[in-house]
Amino acid sequence: LVSEREIIRVMAGYLYKEGWMANDISTYGWGDGLDIICSIDTFVASTDMPPGMGFRDAARKAATGVVSDFASKGARVEAILFSLSLPRTHTLKEIREIAEGLAEAGEEYGFQLLGGDTNEAKDFVITCCGLGRKRLPIVSRSGAMPGDVVATTGLYGLQPLGLHLLKIKATSRNGVEKDALESFLRPVARVEEGYMAISSGMVTSSIDSSDGLLQSLYEIAENSGVRIVVETIPIHPSLRGVAERYDLDPESLALEGGEEYELIFTVRREGWNLLESSFSKAGKPLHRIGRVEGGEGVYLEREAGAVRLERRGWEHFSKR
Amino acid sequence: LVSEREIIRVMAGYLYKEGWMANDISTYGWGDGLDIICSIDTFVASTDMPPGMGFRDAARKAATGVVSDFASKGARVEAILFSLSLPRTHTLKEIREIAEGLAEAGEEYGFQLLGGDTNEAKDFVITCCGLGRKRLPIVSRSGAMPGDVVATTGLYGLQPLGLHLLKIKATSRNGVEKDALESFLRPVARVEEGYMAISSGMVTSSIDSSDGLLQSLYEIAENSGVRIVVETIPIHPSLRGVAERYDLDPESLALEGGEEYELIFTVRREGWNLLESSFSKAGKPLHRIGRVEGGEGVYLEREAGAVRLERRGWEHFSKR
Repeated sequence: LVSEREIIRVMAGYLYKEGWMANDISTYGWGDGLDIICSIDTFVASTDMPPGMGFRDAARKAATGVVSDFASKGARVEAILFSLSLPRTHTLKEIREIAEGLAEAGEEYGFQLLGGDTNEAKDFVITCCGLGRKRLPIVSRSGAMPGDVVATTGLYGLQPLGLHLLKIKATSRNGVEKDALESFLRPVARVEEGYMAISSGMVTSSIDSSDGLLQSLYEIAENSGVRIVVETIPIHPSLRGVAERYDLDPESLALEGGEEYELIFTVRREGWNLLESSFSKAGKPLHRIGRVEGGEGVYLEREAGAVRLERRGWEHFSKR
Repeated sequence: LVSEREIIRVMAGYLYKEGWMANDISTYGWGDGLDIICSIDTFVASTDMPPGMGFRDAARKAATGVVSDFASKGARVEAILFSLSLPRTHTLKEIREIAEGLAEAGEEYGFQLLGGDTNEAKDFVITCCGLGRKRLPIVSRSGAMPGDVVATTGLYGLQPLGLHLLKIKATSRNGVEKDALESFLRPVARVEEGYMAISSGMVTSSIDSSDGLLQSLYEIAENSGVRIVVETIPIHPSLRGVAERYDLDPESLALEGGEEYELIFTVRREGWNLLESSFSKAGKPLHRIGRVEGGEGVYLEREAGAVRLERRGWEHFSKR
């Protein structure tokens, strides 16, 4: 079994310039000062689409993944090309739902759908390739510095609870359960938040949380050669009480979930207050969750001292 | 069962401006006179990868599909993003082969690999999204006019013979069989030919033959609202004798094959001689295969008169 990170390392060795892996997007210069950024993201039914998730939400989510990659660099997707692979059992109704989901995402995020292709496959696979203008310097995963503040745009744990509810086909649909399902099925990329943060010039590294908060913090720590100390796990308060009902641990849900599409930034200490107040004025959440130190790994600050958090979270091809 | 053309019609109704379906590529304007063209193409193991085809050739062919789309518009792919979905059973060796195939195509066609993503799926699916500069007006499938000459850059039938040999696991590997396998496994996109033809200004419609010669001619005829009369089926001469050995009909192989990545043009009559001689001077084949008339459908000129050719060839989701 080959892990996704191993695959990326092999591919990168053959194909890419140094530094590619530390970015979630690629850039391409057309000359005359026009650089575009682009990113490709794929949604696969057998791994990403639990029972109870419709094709409309699946297609919208496929596009959201690309929009979120861009958002983490403060950029906006202007245009998307898609590729659709479908088993032979699909129906016209499903195809209409896929088209609706893409069109809905286009309206929501303001991108144009440029075109696509359709194919037959054993799995439902939808790939979105996004294009946009590079207006700001690219903030990679590798720029975090000791002293930086670690912050994120949201609270965690609802999405993985929603996924769990779908998997166990839970019938209860009240309050928190409803929010959890909604947040899993219809996540929202943090486009405005990304622009506010990156354009401040105070962000030293940035990533979205699509692979889970802990994985994302490890990505920053490893690529930047630093230690991240989590001071507060940003657990969604509604989870308390509800998670236990399903025999789930709120901390694990928050740390090891995934597909939240929140943004995670490391911010220069001297810029933190200004950035925090600009988010506050805009009515957007920005939670300080920790700090960057010298060293390596991701640690959780407890009263008794810092404990190392094992690297866990969503990774394709992981043993499960 | 929903046909690929029906899917495209549904998607187009939701998503695209008028005219999208008549083009094989999309364009996007960035302002300041820079328009780019882009296209997405997907290779799926369960439909496109017969036994005996390796991952290196599969990956190279995925990229060739995009390069060929561009070639049919006289354009060059400058950059490619890819998405790779793999079953859990893949090996590091296979992943290396995929990377090698992409890198090889990049050298061969002169594009840069910008980045990609990897996923787990029940099928091996590789999607390539190509980007390039729009330097020439886009020639669609819809501009053929009565009086035009129909021409193509190659001879047909070897590729589908190669596919057949792989499917039946033929052990004979001499002469024509070797050529047939080679042309199926390692097709070459006609980049230079496309540029020569389109930049002449004499081409009224253009398409590549990746879905088969007959399908491609039908695409032009339907989109242009004309009849195409095939005067000579461009059968590869090596097929005669060999096809029969495998109980195959050379005419059907040539008309209904696919994945040849040859280019098919309709050419203004007054420009034909010049275009033909410029190809001849460059040592590139350009075969006149027919003419455009008023009416509809695709016909074959026989001594006894024209007979209508039934629309057949490769279409995903077709009943087979």
